[in-house]
Amino acid sequence: MEDPLVIAGETFGSRLIMGTGGAPSMNVLEEALTASGTELTTVAMRRVDPGSRGSVLDVLGRCGIRVLPNTAGCFTAGEAVLTAKLARDALETNWVKLEVIADERTLLPDPIELLDAAEQLVDDGFVVLPYTNDDPVLAHRLEQAGCAAVMPLGSPIGSGLGIRNPHNIELIVERAQVPVVLDAGLGTASDAALAMELGCDAVLLATAVTRAQSPALMASAMRHAVTAGRMARLAGRIPKRRYAQASSPWQGLSSGG
Amino acid sequence: MEDPLVIAGETFGSRLIMGTGGAPSMNVLEEALTASGTELTTVAMRRVDPGSRGSVLDVLGRCGIRVLPNTAGCFTAGEAVLTAKLARDALETNWVKLEVIADERTLLPDPIELLDAAEQLVDDGFVVLPYTNDDPVLAHRLEQAGCAAVMPLGSPIGSGLGIRNPHNIELIVERAQVPVVLDAGLGTASDAALAMELGCDAVLLATAVTRAQSPALMASAMRHAVTAGRMARLAGRIPKRRYAQASSPWQGLSSGG
Amino acid sequence: MEDPLVIAGETFGSRLIMGTGGAPSMNVLEEALTASGTELTTVAMRRVDPGSRGSVLDVLGRCGIRVLPNTAGCFTAGEAVLTAKLARDALETNWVKLEVIADERTLLPDPIELLDAAEQLVDDGFVVLPYTNDDPVLAHRLEQAGCAAVMPLGSPIGSGLGIRNPHNIELIVERAQVPVVLDAGLGTASDAALAMELGCDAVLLATAVTRAQSPALMASAMRHAVTAGRMARLAGRIPKRRYAQASSPWQGLSSGG
Amino acid sequence: MEDPLVIAGETFGSRLIMGTGGAPSMNVLEEALTASGTELTTVAMRRVDPGSRGSVLDVLGRCGIRVLPNTAGCFTAGEAVLTAKLARDALETNWVKLEVIADERTLLPDPIELLDAAEQLVDDGFVVLPYTNDDPVLAHRLEQAGCAAVMPLGSPIGSGLGIRNPHNIELIVERAQVPVVLDAGLGTASDAALAMELGCDAVLLATAVTRAQSPALMASAMRHAVTAGRMARLAGRIPKRRYAQASSPWQGLSSGG
Repeated sequence: MEDPLVIAGETFGSRLIMGTGGAPSMNVLEEALTASGTELTTVAMRRVDPGSRGSVLDVLGRCGIRVLPNTAGCFTAGEAVLTAKLARDALETNWVKLEVIADERTLLPDPIELLDAAEQLVDDGFVVLPYTNDDPVLAHRLEQAGCAAVMPLGSPIGSGLGIRNPHNIELIVERAQVPVVLDAGLGTASDAALAMELGCDAVLLATAVTRAQSPALMASAMRHAVTAGRMARLAGRIPKRRYAQASSPWQGLSSGG
Repeated sequence: MEDPLVIAGETFGSRLIMGTGGAPSMNVLEEALTASGTELTTVAMRRVDPGSRGSVLDVLGRCGIRVLPNTAGCFTAGEAVLTAKLARDALETNWVKLEVIADERTLLPDPIELLDAAEQLVDDGFVVLPYTNDDPVLAHRLEQAGCAAVMPLGSPIGSGLGIRNPHNIELIVERAQVPVVLDAGLGTASDAALAMELGCDAVLLATAVTRAQSPALMASAMRHAVTAGRMARLAGRIPKRRYAQASSPWQGLSSGG
Repeated sequence: MEDPLVIAGETFGSRLIMGTGGAPSMNVLEEALTASGTELTTVAMRRVDPGSRGSVLDVLGRCGIRVLPNTAGCFTAGEAVLTAKLARDALETNWVKLEVIADERTLLPDPIELLDAAEQLVDDGFVVLPYTNDDPVLAHRLEQAGCAAVMPLGSPIGSGLGIRNPHNIELIVERAQVPVVLDAGLGTASDAALAMELGCDAVLLATAVTRAQSPALMASAMRHAVTAGRMARLAGRIPKRRYAQASSPWQGLSSGG
Repeated sequence: MEDPLVIAGETFGSRLIMGTGGAPSMNVLEEALTASGTELTTVAMRRVDPGSRGSVLDVLGRCGIRVLPNTAGCFTAGEAVLTAKLARDALETNWVKLEVIADERTLLPDPIELLDAAEQLVDDGFVVLPYTNDDPVLAHRLEQAGCAAVMPLGSPIGSGLGIRNPHNIELIVERAQVPVVLDAGLGTASDAALAMELGCDAVLLATAVTRAQSPALMASAMRHAVTAGRMARLAGRIPKRRYAQASSPWQGLSSGG
């Protein structure tokens, strides 16, 4: 089934975007990324030295995975804009996952600083993929500001709580004209499948894989889950019914089970 | 990853057991079964004529899928036992999916009749796979009676409501020494993944696939979902946390995202 | 608002039935029972000596609360029937809360033994109020056996998990011709309100009150919650809507907020 | 139990704040407000003519309920600030429930315009009570801007979906130094009780009462529910447990139930 993810005109065969934080070693990370089948992976610019050997960038290069620099660790629009520009120079990409965090306890995005930074970066020619809360209004304003996608959270980063408010994700999906990427909070495969069933175009996760007991196996689980959820969305699920419905032989087969 | 499902000493490569009810045509059914990768599929004995041409049995034969006769449509232990025996004679298998339904509105199993029928059939040498409610006590009694698996519902047959009480499924899994198969109520891929994450050994579904808008695509979704959920269970998911947890560079990589 | 609870022809002004287990002292229990406004309270016959002074029976007598003996601690129909008869003799009441437990870890009722005991006790002239799981089929069979009420659990005794499967409770309520009492698992006031909103006729709880940090205050909370939930049920709640609905001045007032 | 709600130094005996939109008639509204026991009620300034007879203001005056003007129907900070000033002049109060809505379909607040308006109004001496989404970061910024309370939604206005994301409400409550009022989305009594159990200081609702089949009865239900939830919060509920816990006679009473 040909069903590529398209962001800002670029095409990706996988709808699973990976992060790299939390992996116990480079070897484990490489195995997990390979198992995930991802074609796009975020790297925190504030933590990486692009010139060093043995870095996460080497791993991504070896695996043929496109790098998506992010601005993790930035608390103001100014910091985030500066970090994005440094990333552009160092990595020769104008794509950026925009994170502007309000505080270290929740790592929740600051809506005001985020929108401000997004507007500045779009004006400066960046392809901006903002990590946002699950507010449909803010998601729409980010899209109006020219962002190439919107990336609402399911729950706080690293919490593993899954999608706390599926209703909001549905509201975002219904209105968005750009891809919606569920970013943050996923803990297990069914969470990723649900994100896709709600209509998200892709899923971004890191901790759920890198901190699982078996990262490569969980990466494979997530790969299957994203495929499963996407297919289920396209396949048109049965409606939910209050009561049972038997397999009715007179409506279909003369025999069933 | 070698990870077969074993029931009563028989090995299956797929953990997705299919039902056949509700399919709009034999062609659609065949495509869906093939896409699902199933190796074991239920057929309602009260609705099938084993000698007829073009029946569901022909489809299963062509696909190389093992037939699991069921007693759908039986309301008493006596009816179910009789139906199981007829199936054994007609299909030359001593396996039976045991259904004893209380009423047509809910299609919920009758616990009293079910246990009675299970005891009779086990005594008579059947390999009994009972469709039960999600009561941990009844599941345990069915196992004690000699059933080869227990098959608790997620929600009423055909309802698409998913797993209404995950806590009960976990209690059943924790205690069971025989395979636990989540049977009935699943509506979409994330439901199937969740069943496996809760520790079920397999999933049985029909309507979610046969009545989906695109049955073959949903069958494929379910196949991936069962794999995803099984892998996630084995991979050891991250714990749920109340607050965020950053990708901590000092705990792992010197760079992350 | 006159809205009494009627069980087996007896009328109660309060829809909150209390248990007595878990209280740290008799004084605390008495305060809590008084604050709850209950008119009917269960006492475990296997733990009480009806002739002793300072017992829970004295407390109930002082408070003018009717005693409902229960068969807590019984694991078979035989034990439960015997205990019920002892209670009848000792307390001069033919009412009994029937508990037949499958194991000590879950304290879940054994459906087979429960129905057996219920049938025996009804035959012997008892007014039987059975503690059952949330299976709509078993609830209906207990009613058919002549029970004066059915008392499905919300979740395991003392777990505080609330109502794990509201859908099942609704199915039970829809069909029942006798009062439905939500029994076991409630943890806080909103749980009790929800039980009543689902259509239960009363709520039975013990641990949520007796083990709360402030038992008398929680008893008062539960009293208000049961009233609130009952009123809300009768008042006819607004439907759930996917989207917002403004206060529409043209539909009602020329001004609003 | 003396337990008043204090907002900006003013004390209220009731923790139920009412809205007035959606009532079918002034008589029904008056009965409902009386039954609710509210001492503070919002009125939409864009819909009311303070000088007219028979208006909602007359009802509130008759009932001795304090008027809280709101800026419902405003889509920009400028509109909201202007409306607040008109309300201050007309009603001689510097209190305002601040609503700045993004669109008519969801009626969700616009976080950017909302914060802007809040800052302007605080600077101008208003006591600002902002209706906000459930984002903990925005709630904190509104408090930092000098708002006298924060009023997060449970779900979209009039939806009756209850509290979609209890986790966010808890995060807001944990951090807030000003009262937290759950505003919007509540549908029935258990929703209101839950809001209070999560630690909210008060509840604001309109549609759930005014559009119920019996508004006055639902108002009374909500009154009891808010009391129940508040008491339960203060009483210290039992922890949630995975397994059952019997009433243990050796830990407490020598008898129980």
